[in-house]
Amino acid sequence: MSNKKTSNEMWGGRFASGPAAVMEAINASIGFDRKLYAQDIRGSLAHSEMLAETGIISAEDQNRIAHGLNTILREIEAGEFVFSAAREDIHMNIEARLAELIGPAAGRLHTARSRNDQVAVDFRLWVKEELTRTAEALKALIGAFLARADEHAATIMPGFTHLQSAQPVTFGHHCMAYVEMFGRDLSRVRDALERLDESPLGAAALAGTGFPIDRAMTARALGFRGPTRNSIDSVSDRDFALEFLSTAAICATHLSRLAEEIVIWSTPQFGFVRLSDSFSTGSSIMPQKKNPDAAELVRAKTGRINGDLLALLTVMKGLPLAYSKDMQEDKEAVFDAAEALELMLAAMTGMVADLAVDKTAMRKAAGAGYSTATDLADWLVRVAGLPFREAHHVTGRAVALAESRKTALEKLTLAELQAIHASITEDVYSVLSVRNSVRSRTSFGGTAPGEVRRQIRSWKKRLARA
Amino acid sequence: MSNKKTSNEMWGGRFASGPAAVMEAINASIGFDRKLYAQDIRGSLAHSEMLAETGIISAEDQNRIAHGLNTILREIEAGEFVFSAAREDIHMNIEARLAELIGPAAGRLHTARSRNDQVAVDFRLWVKEELTRTAEALKALIGAFLARADEHAATIMPGFTHLQSAQPVTFGHHCMAYVEMFGRDLSRVRDALERLDESPLGAAALAGTGFPIDRAMTARALGFRGPTRNSIDSVSDRDFALEFLSTAAICATHLSRLAEEIVIWSTPQFGFVRLSDSFSTGSSIMPQKKNPDAAELVRAKTGRINGDLLALLTVMKGLPLAYSKDMQEDKEAVFDAAEALELMLAAMTGMVADLAVDKTAMRKAAGAGYSTATDLADWLVRVAGLPFREAHHVTGRAVALAESRKTALEKLTLAELQAIHASITEDVYSVLSVRNSVRSRTSFGGTAPGEVRRQIRSWKKRLARA
Amino acid sequence: MSNKKTSNEMWGGRFASGPAAVMEAINASIGFDRKLYAQDIRGSLAHSEMLAETGIISAEDQNRIAHGLNTILREIEAGEFVFSAAREDIHMNIEARLAELIGPAAGRLHTARSRNDQVAVDFRLWVKEELTRTAEALKALIGAFLARADEHAATIMPGFTHLQSAQPVTFGHHCMAYVEMFGRDLSRVRDALERLDESPLGAAALAGTGFPIDRAMTARALGFRGPTRNSIDSVSDRDFALEFLSTAAICATHLSRLAEEIVIWSTPQFGFVRLSDSFSTGSSIMPQKKNPDAAELVRAKTGRINGDLLALLTVMKGLPLAYSKDMQEDKEAVFDAAEALELMLAAMTGMVADLAVDKTAMRKAAGAGYSTATDLADWLVRVAGLPFREAHHVTGRAVALAESRKTALEKLTLAELQAIHASITEDVYSVLSVRNSVRSRTSFGGTAPGEVRRQIRSWKKRLARA
Amino acid sequence: MSNKKTSNEMWGGRFASGPAAVMEAINASIGFDRKLYAQDIRGSLAHSEMLAETGIISAEDQNRIAHGLNTILREIEAGEFVFSAAREDIHMNIEARLAELIGPAAGRLHTARSRNDQVAVDFRLWVKEELTRTAEALKALIGAFLARADEHAATIMPGFTHLQSAQPVTFGHHCMAYVEMFGRDLSRVRDALERLDESPLGAAALAGTGFPIDRAMTARALGFRGPTRNSIDSVSDRDFALEFLSTAAICATHLSRLAEEIVIWSTPQFGFVRLSDSFSTGSSIMPQKKNPDAAELVRAKTGRINGDLLALLTVMKGLPLAYSKDMQEDKEAVFDAAEALELMLAAMTGMVADLAVDKTAMRKAAGAGYSTATDLADWLVRVAGLPFREAHHVTGRAVALAESRKTALEKLTLAELQAIHASITEDVYSVLSVRNSVRSRTSFGGTAPGEVRRQIRSWKKRLARA
Repeated sequence: MSNKKTSNEMWGGRFASGPAAVMEAINASIGFDRKLYAQDIRGSLAHSEMLAETGIISAEDQNRIAHGLNTILREIEAGEFVFSAAREDIHMNIEARLAELIGPAAGRLHTARSRNDQVAVDFRLWVKEELTRTAEALKALIGAFLARADEHAATIMPGFTHLQSAQPVTFGHHCMAYVEMFGRDLSRVRDALERLDESPLGAAALAGTGFPIDRAMTARALGFRGPTRNSIDSVSDRDFALEFLSTAAICATHLSRLAEEIVIWSTPQFGFVRLSDSFSTGSSIMPQKKNPDAAELVRAKTGRINGDLLALLTVMKGLPLAYSKDMQEDKEAVFDAAEALELMLAAMTGMVADLAVDKTAMRKAAGAGYSTATDLADWLVRVAGLPFREAHHVTGRAVALAESRKTALEKLTLAELQAIHASITEDVYSVLSVRNSVRSRTSFGGTAPGEVRRQIRSWKKRLARA
Repeated sequence: MSNKKTSNEMWGGRFASGPAAVMEAINASIGFDRKLYAQDIRGSLAHSEMLAETGIISAEDQNRIAHGLNTILREIEAGEFVFSAAREDIHMNIEARLAELIGPAAGRLHTARSRNDQVAVDFRLWVKEELTRTAEALKALIGAFLARADEHAATIMPGFTHLQSAQPVTFGHHCMAYVEMFGRDLSRVRDALERLDESPLGAAALAGTGFPIDRAMTARALGFRGPTRNSIDSVSDRDFALEFLSTAAICATHLSRLAEEIVIWSTPQFGFVRLSDSFSTGSSIMPQKKNPDAAELVRAKTGRINGDLLALLTVMKGLPLAYSKDMQEDKEAVFDAAEALELMLAAMTGMVADLAVDKTAMRKAAGAGYSTATDLADWLVRVAGLPFREAHHVTGRAVALAESRKTALEKLTLAELQAIHASITEDVYSVLSVRNSVRSRTSFGGTAPGEVRRQIRSWKKRLARA
Repeated sequence: MSNKKTSNEMWGGRFASGPAAVMEAINASIGFDRKLYAQDIRGSLAHSEMLAETGIISAEDQNRIAHGLNTILREIEAGEFVFSAAREDIHMNIEARLAELIGPAAGRLHTARSRNDQVAVDFRLWVKEELTRTAEALKALIGAFLARADEHAATIMPGFTHLQSAQPVTFGHHCMAYVEMFGRDLSRVRDALERLDESPLGAAALAGTGFPIDRAMTARALGFRGPTRNSIDSVSDRDFALEFLSTAAICATHLSRLAEEIVIWSTPQFGFVRLSDSFSTGSSIMPQKKNPDAAELVRAKTGRINGDLLALLTVMKGLPLAYSKDMQEDKEAVFDAAEALELMLAAMTGMVADLAVDKTAMRKAAGAGYSTATDLADWLVRVAGLPFREAHHVTGRAVALAESRKTALEKLTLAELQAIHASITEDVYSVLSVRNSVRSRTSFGGTAPGEVRRQIRSWKKRLARA
Repeated sequence: MSNKKTSNEMWGGRFASGPAAVMEAINASIGFDRKLYAQDIRGSLAHSEMLAETGIISAEDQNRIAHGLNTILREIEAGEFVFSAAREDIHMNIEARLAELIGPAAGRLHTARSRNDQVAVDFRLWVKEELTRTAEALKALIGAFLARADEHAATIMPGFTHLQSAQPVTFGHHCMAYVEMFGRDLSRVRDALERLDESPLGAAALAGTGFPIDRAMTARALGFRGPTRNSIDSVSDRDFALEFLSTAAICATHLSRLAEEIVIWSTPQFGFVRLSDSFSTGSSIMPQKKNPDAAELVRAKTGRINGDLLALLTVMKGLPLAYSKDMQEDKEAVFDAAEALELMLAAMTGMVADLAVDKTAMRKAAGAGYSTATDLADWLVRVAGLPFREAHHVTGRAVALAESRKTALEKLTLAELQAIHASITEDVYSVLSVRNSVRSRTSFGGTAPGEVRRQIRSWKKRLARA
């Protein structure tokens, strides 16, 4: 590519030759920031209305500008707009088209603003909308879990620690753990929304402006709580993007844990759940395969979101105030993470609703692995009055005996148990069944079905209010 | 190295041989989790009091336990406690010592709890305290900035974009941009504090317990708002650590930007600020050197905190519920980031208070680089009625002329300016001085000294309430 | 979107209903893996030739397959190929089109292979080609630096540590430091190329195959050194992608250092270099601005590449063998980093060739800041026989005196210097000039122009051989 | 802490007051760089010998220096050395002690060098030694795998893709996949060793020196291939640290995959392997637990190493040449990753040797899930002449039939199979057994026991040479 004489109509006044081809390639952001077209037009409409209201431009010019911008909006949405890399970004693409449509009045739109505050307001609006979409997606996922929890409040499965059977729990209780996680994500999203809800428009290049603008008016028109308080910060701040990404990364971490469980649980070895054909795929070579691809992809995309977070943290590190071009790298990281998170939440909501639970397999596994050993130890404390540590040792010996006999704890005879500790009585067998174990855990937040149901009811109310 | 017969007194009941040496080395956490001793003891005191109050253990046993735990606290603080790697972690080190001190009653302390909820409560208490310390450190830094901003509300310096002179601003205004950043950090810290303020104690291993415990009582005793709602989530959740780390990473990003500015501004080429000997170091070989080491280290430690965040996100990715041993890697990342952030905030607060500002150098630089070109363009809009785009082009030609003459914009003659655009009058020179430029930017959040002072007053009030 | 009856023609045999819309959206990779079309077709051609050569398919079928694949290649390159998301990926898109073109013979192409080894070979071929492109780009950049080093082997500038003047060096010497860095990058690229140069084709799904294939033949046809040695590893390995990314990340780190220097050096305060209009951009609001956008974007894209590396490391962490769908997330990270690195290298090569060096500004700065203080200390050691530490202290006092007088070291009178240390003679002034300082550093790898020129000659030879 | 009058004896000459307490806390590196004491002393010995050899210092002074340094080495190794934070780092701690021991001659040691090249050489020596240790640890791990592979070359297990049974493989073959991975790690370690094998000593502060030093001599004495070629690069380069970290991160990724498999395989549901008590731990509350803690910790520490890599990449990003204090953050990241990787490799080598393989469980699982479906499809291609795609569809229908009957593929009657495709004969049953399936995969690198044994023999030879 050869250099063009004057490639840029907006700032090319003092430049003798146009940017080299590689410069255009590295510099242009229109390939990705076109995604902000609606926000950019909304921002320009709000700005031009304020300029007219405050008398900085005339009402006629404002009318022309508004008409032109609405035309452009329609052109873009109809796919008729021709984007140009030489015009660098969405802001200049739109302004140049506006000049074609309405002539000199277009040149008045950029009064008292800069691309620096324009991109800040566009991007902030986009992130705000994305956070709102994320909140809705989280509510849908929580709703899906509440429905499964309700259905399985008393379905017994093994509770795992270290992926080894620990104590029996209910599948409903397990689902409610995810409700807590995604509930925290929702609360982080709301905090982020609250924090970013300020309009940077009117910061101009970085110093504010001498034109008698009304920043409260544009803030209001764009749906912000009010204007930001410092013009330098307004154009150099990308906290809202970093906070979106870190919130997304924590949420993705939760999704990856769920994904891992679905992958493991749908192996024939576990067999706890089965995904329908809607969430499975086959193999090009192995005709029998039915793979949990969607769960694997959800798990993997966590890495992608972490990478996006890290990328932007690294970009922003050590940047002197106010705007540096480095900050142009903010958008793709956020767009990429947002698209990934939306897909992950939608796919997981689908899978949670879709998965078939094999109660029999869960129940059988819950009884294996001496999962009620803690109940035996607790019985020894409660009934026989042993200190817990001693009870733990006694139980350890009972487990070792059962293991050497390749039998279950409750299959040991009373004589065998009494040989281990004389205080043991027939009553002990009542605590060795998984059903009684689960029922007994009635502490606040515990796995007893009644307690689980109480939490479900409480969360349904919270969700309705959320 | 040889295996030891029975290395672990707590859970060694059914193990035939002790862990291999490498196992002990990889498994033991006492090397770092001893930092949680105070939280662990507080947790155990609260738990034992509740056990006594609810009748699960006797008042006598509770007295012995409390007495023993207080003895241990004193031993640790006096440096007399012997930590043992064979006893793995802080919880077992303390419990084993308790057994030495008070005998069998020690064995009753672990009734109705597990290391899983014990570590969750200890770590959460620690992070809560650290967040509180961070809030205080942020307030001190904001205070330091407010003081400098007050002093320099009218000190003129160049405002930069792309590290090139953009428009004149005041140093006070620049300081206030950092106040906004650290103010957002403070608000993130408060949100994190609010979100983690729930007690996991009583979740036991993961399923809750059949003992008639009172989780609200222990939550209250430990200063939490209330108990967590789901026992599985309680032991598998590390969101509070991830949120601390992501909050720290964003705050560190702000600190790194300030550090970069200090490094650049204290070069002889810029010469805007000068650090005292207290925040500089010399060279082993070059006798003339005075280096801004502290600022460089602040900048660098941002990488460390990002690494810590990333490490824990990676650790938590894809972990099935509930507790997995992977989660033991949570603490060092948080401790490391916390220590780094404390140092960074303290060093930066010191540097902000310490740095000598060279007003003359700032003022001189503010006038260079045609920094009032925007004012000329705005004048053309306001007075001559040009559309901004046309005014921008006209100004571009004026800058090109001044550049070719190697002179300042305000040194061009009226005739020269009128040759560029006939509408220009003598009045234009009033907007070409940096002082008038700064004074004119009176828009909300702008750099005009009066506006800066208004923001300082408003922030002083906010800080007093914070 | 509604589910389709049987969306997938390749593995849909046993599936009752097609994947849900969200499943298709998350699962399809055709949006990005179409980039591998040429590699996929080359792989299929090599595979089919081997199948015919070994008698597994007939020569006629191979002819049909080859003809069909070549037709597809032309269709894709002509932009006439219709890609379909329902056909998931590039492999199935091509195979399905092949079936349309040549009928049943297309069904014989997939004999004795799987998508698992197909994607492994395609992606490996792509990374191999990209590494080769990277090597060429590095050589161009090294060449650009050698040219500037030659030109400026004796151009004096300040050598910095802590961004403070340390000792005078030459700009040529500084350029040669980058030659060393990019030279190491080149050597890492070559090592990576050597390591990945093995063909996974023939590993089939993961276990190898019972068909009498000849893996050495396909390896040869595809330009690989030979076949991989373990079929499970062949389909589960993504080391070549991780190594590409880590090599790219280190190279990007070097580029970011250079970018930072360009940004700082082109400030008016430093003024060491000036980028032409080809590598600068202007401002939408400030008519005087000329910003080093390309350098800033190079600096920023380092974060992006780090993010890509991190993303894939996170994706691969903890994946059980052999192939998991998570690995589909490998390609976008690599493509993104490759595109960024290509742009960064090209832009930097352009900037290095383009930048105008202001020798006067460099020379002036080199003399400031007591940059020859080490020379004074060394003189005291060499001539006056002081231990270095004492010489360092003596020099420190001389610097302090000069600083208090606001003068240069060489402007102190002999009497003043002798008052600090009696052994100082007139001869000392010879070492206090920056020119003599630079000339004196003749140690191997030092900054003396003769030594710099020797290194340039040596590197030119190395590069010619590389 | 209060400020001290002159805290630093080395560079304190021109400083009026000592560093503030926070400055000392953030600046001192002695807390971690003391780890480099042996390398520092070796470097100083080599440097002083060269200084004497070239006549820069006298032989007597060199004798005194050597004697003093050896005394210090003994003091440190005996634990008698008192480290001081006020003396900042290991270099100054040693030099100050040397002055106490031998007086003024100590002051001659620092002639013609700087802390900048001193730290570069110390750290490079340390990384070089660590890479050598890593190579040994990798060889031990490969050896452990080769032994298990030998033992289990014909032990049948399911080969997994997507954690679902794909095709039967042998456990020996699976082990050999890890041999390939760790073999690549070993080759990366060797490349890194080769690349870093140059001595930066003699670069001095950054410009080289005017003293007639002999850098080849010190390089030789320290065991380096030769000296580095550019003095600026020598003190600003940390590629060797980044390359160590990225090599470690890829190796850790491999270890994490193995760890994940051990965690999953030792669940009762899989039951493929069982760790001895040496590599398991118990629970404080659940007496029956036997947890794969070591595997989980290995998996988790991958996050830590990724974090360390990321931290240093972030630290180095955008640093202007030559040395900046930011680079002091290089060591802890490397030390931390090195310690983690050593532990991980040792623990994994132990576990691989230790784990008991349950052949029966593996064999049983290998036969489940229609794992020989591909063999049926291949038979249809080979014997009945179907195109693979058609064979794949036919097999898919057979699997669906078997699934609906809840039976195995080989339990379908010939009539049933012929109803699906008329060409099927009795002969098909021979390929439906897992044993025959495994035996048939004789392609190069395939899972047939003979082929696996061939690869084991070949690797044993490679390892012996490595």
